Amino acid sequence: MAFRLSTAAVRPLRPSTLLRPSAQQLRWLATPVYPVTSNLNGSKGPTAMVFLNMGGPSTVDEVGDFLSRLFADADLIPLGRLQNYIGPLISKRRTPKIQAQYAAIGGGSPIRKWSELQCSEMCKILDEISPETAPHKPYVAFRYANPLTETMYRQLLADGFGNGKGGRAVAFTQYPQYSCSTTGSSLNELWKWRQRLEGKAGPLDDGSDGTIKWSVIDRWPVHPGLVEAFAQNIEAKLLEYPEERRDKVVLLFSAHSLPMSVVNRGDPYPAEVGATVHAVMQRLKHVNPYRLCWQSQVGPQPWLGPQTQSSVEEYIAKGQKDLVLIPIAFTSDHIETLYELDEEVIGESGHKDTVKRVESLNGNPVFINALADLAKTHLASGIATSAQMGLRCPGCKSDRCHESKKFFAAQELA
Amino acid sequence: MAFRLSTAAVRPLRPSTLLRPSAQQLRWLATPVYPVTSNLNGSKGPTAMVFLNMGGPSTVDEVGDFLSRLFADADLIPLGRLQNYIGPLISKRRTPKIQAQYAAIGGGSPIRKWSELQCSEMCKILDEISPETAPHKPYVAFRYANPLTETMYRQLLADGFGNGKGGRAVAFTQYPQYSCSTTGSSLNELWKWRQRLEGKAGPLDDGSDGTIKWSVIDRWPVHPGLVEAFAQNIEAKLLEYPEERRDKVVLLFSAHSLPMSVVNRGDPYPAEVGATVHAVMQRLKHVNPYRLCWQSQVGPQPWLGPQTQSSVEEYIAKGQKDLVLIPIAFTSDHIETLYELDEEVIGESGHKDTVKRVESLNGNPVFINALADLAKTHLASGIATSAQMGLRCPGCKSDRCHESKKFFAAQELA
Repeated sequence: MAFRLSTAAVRPLRPSTLLRPSAQQLRWLATPVYPVTSNLNGSKGPTAMVFLNMGGPSTVDEVGDFLSRLFADADLIPLGRLQNYIGPLISKRRTPKIQAQYAAIGGGSPIRKWSELQCSEMCKILDEISPETAPHKPYVAFRYANPLTETMYRQLLADGFGNGKGGRAVAFTQYPQYSCSTTGSSLNELWKWRQRLEGKAGPLDDGSDGTIKWSVIDRWPVHPGLVEAFAQNIEAKLLEYPEERRDKVVLLFSAHSLPMSVVNRGDPYPAEVGATVHAVMQRLKHVNPYRLCWQSQVGPQPWLGPQTQSSVEEYIAKGQKDLVLIPIAFTSDHIETLYELDEEVIGESGHKDTVKRVESLNGNPVFINALADLAKTHLASGIATSAQMGLRCPGCKSDRCHESKKFFAAQELA
Repeated sequence: MAFRLSTAAVRPLRPSTLLRPSAQQLRWLATPVYPVTSNLNGSKGPTAMVFLNMGGPSTVDEVGDFLSRLFADADLIPLGRLQNYIGPLISKRRTPKIQAQYAAIGGGSPIRKWSELQCSEMCKILDEISPETAPHKPYVAFRYANPLTETMYRQLLADGFGNGKGGRAVAFTQYPQYSCSTTGSSLNELWKWRQRLEGKAGPLDDGSDGTIKWSVIDRWPVHPGLVEAFAQNIEAKLLEYPEERRDKVVLLFSAHSLPMSVVNRGDPYPAEVGATVHAVMQRLKHVNPYRLCWQSQVGPQPWLGPQTQSSVEEYIAKGQKDLVLIPIAFTSDHIETLYELDEEVIGESGHKDTVKRVESLNGNPVFINALADLAKTHLASGIATSAQMGLRCPGCKSDRCHESKKFFAAQELA
């Protein structure tokens, strides 16, 4: 499976073009990469930029595998000791229903398309604004769908990173807010494959063991470019309402919910989502009223609320029919926006004309520039991970988290 | 009961003096106030500045009344239909235990002392920086302790506000983050007494009915002065650790918890507390790892976690003994800092030398200047309430909230 994107063959895009990637832009290219030992013009590159995300099935046929991986992940859906029994049962039972949902949104998730475009475009910008770490090579590693973390790691090695040749890779989470269920799970998976494919120890400080040096961009909930991109999309959507109603439209920020067991363990995600929402509202000068609600609950346990769907129903029942939904914790379209929000929440609201959803960030150039700015700052900082990422949740009992955090925190960069 | 503070007799204080108010500064003065119709130097004042807070018993004898008001408040502790039966039972049963706690912290809560000092000092600053609304008259209205909202309102009328003479009053919540349980409850109480003492209708736009014109400062979770005051106190506390351990100290932000029924109704508080924490960490450049946890759960229902006390225990069990507790949702010392954090959480941790609490804001001049800045901006804005305050929670079923929000949102200022 070729999941690496070549940046060389893709020309810089005009902003309007960015919004709709052409087939050419998305095509897998098999051109050889620079060897990791190259050091043209004094650059310390190449640098591998690895986007981490949950992923989604690109075709309906991949839904079964996707769900079975998802329900097997105790970092995401903690089912206790019976995970290996209950997980497959739930995923098998849910497969036909979820297949129908993917069929309804065009036969698959666009998250791979957008992730690859975002990463590739970011790398092109980085080559310009961070020449000292150029060239930047785009990779995508999904937790539950292709390209999986293992495949990405093997490709890294095949491309000349590690295997005695060293080189630097940045794990860049595409979840703006950190949760152990999402970024934490992806990092644990990355750590697992790193241990399996490159041995138990981290790289030596002097690089003499030739393993890959990893660093992590683990959260960015209030980056000004992220906030700006959200705010512009909200402003654009508000323009669709008549001027006299515009300032009274209720903004409903919607984030994927968490089980209360995860919240009560001390997961940082709810507070960071709150920070993003507040930053966006500051940027919008607090003109409109708003609420943060939570979507996509599944299973019998208590989850963090209020739920997005019931919030929409309750506001409509109160007479508030002008509602704008803002997916605030994912950056690309996926089943939770295209089906859950568009088809279920809005579709079943009875007010499709006044309940709307803002565009997802997808190929938004403001957003892609924000990613490049985040990466440039990180690359220049010499920091392996944030101090915050090294801290386990107070209620954490996971050895996996402990070891994974220890590994990444110990990656001292030159 | 005289609870109004005269500002005229209190000289400007040096910052060091501010931290410990003298008896004179706290003395109730019975000097006559300016009539509300006075209009010296073109000022639109006087302006009543009313600090809203929960309050606490100033003496051990007041604990019983305090608790019975607290457990009678369905906005704070929703006990359902049996509120009037269960509330008194709980408050009566808890009184001896809570009396002992107040005895342990010196015989009463200092929240009245601090609230009166903060309000009076803020008004002095406002007289200088907002002369067009001067003089500013300080009032305090507590929800569960003296001075109660009713008493404050009667004093306002006695002091020449309302009663045909009009005048302007600002309800200034002293909870930085908005919860229906706290600021919402205080505003509902204020609205109730306003209706009882000044009639059903709001003031006429032209002021011709002579009732008080109210406006509300309903939240200020990320005001730069608030953030600065918190950050300075954290920096000061970190200096107590040896330099080589300082950057590894875990910052534990602690806020009063909420029942999950309130969270799931759509209460804005958890997200706003998250915004405050993130703003403080931004100001501190994210050097230390941190977590947000929640304290003071009471009763059998599920509350938002992780709990502060168990978080401290769990971090200590993991070997993390350098912990700094930061009360992030109250601005003055009260039983939850002086007893719950200091005596219970820290006192019972077994590591009183390494588990510490930052100072509360109390008489901190950076904080009091922030209050003045907030008030000046509000007074100049002509805005009655934020757009956000007018929006009920999606799951709100309270007529009280509905009517109270409608009243305050309708207060058009000249």
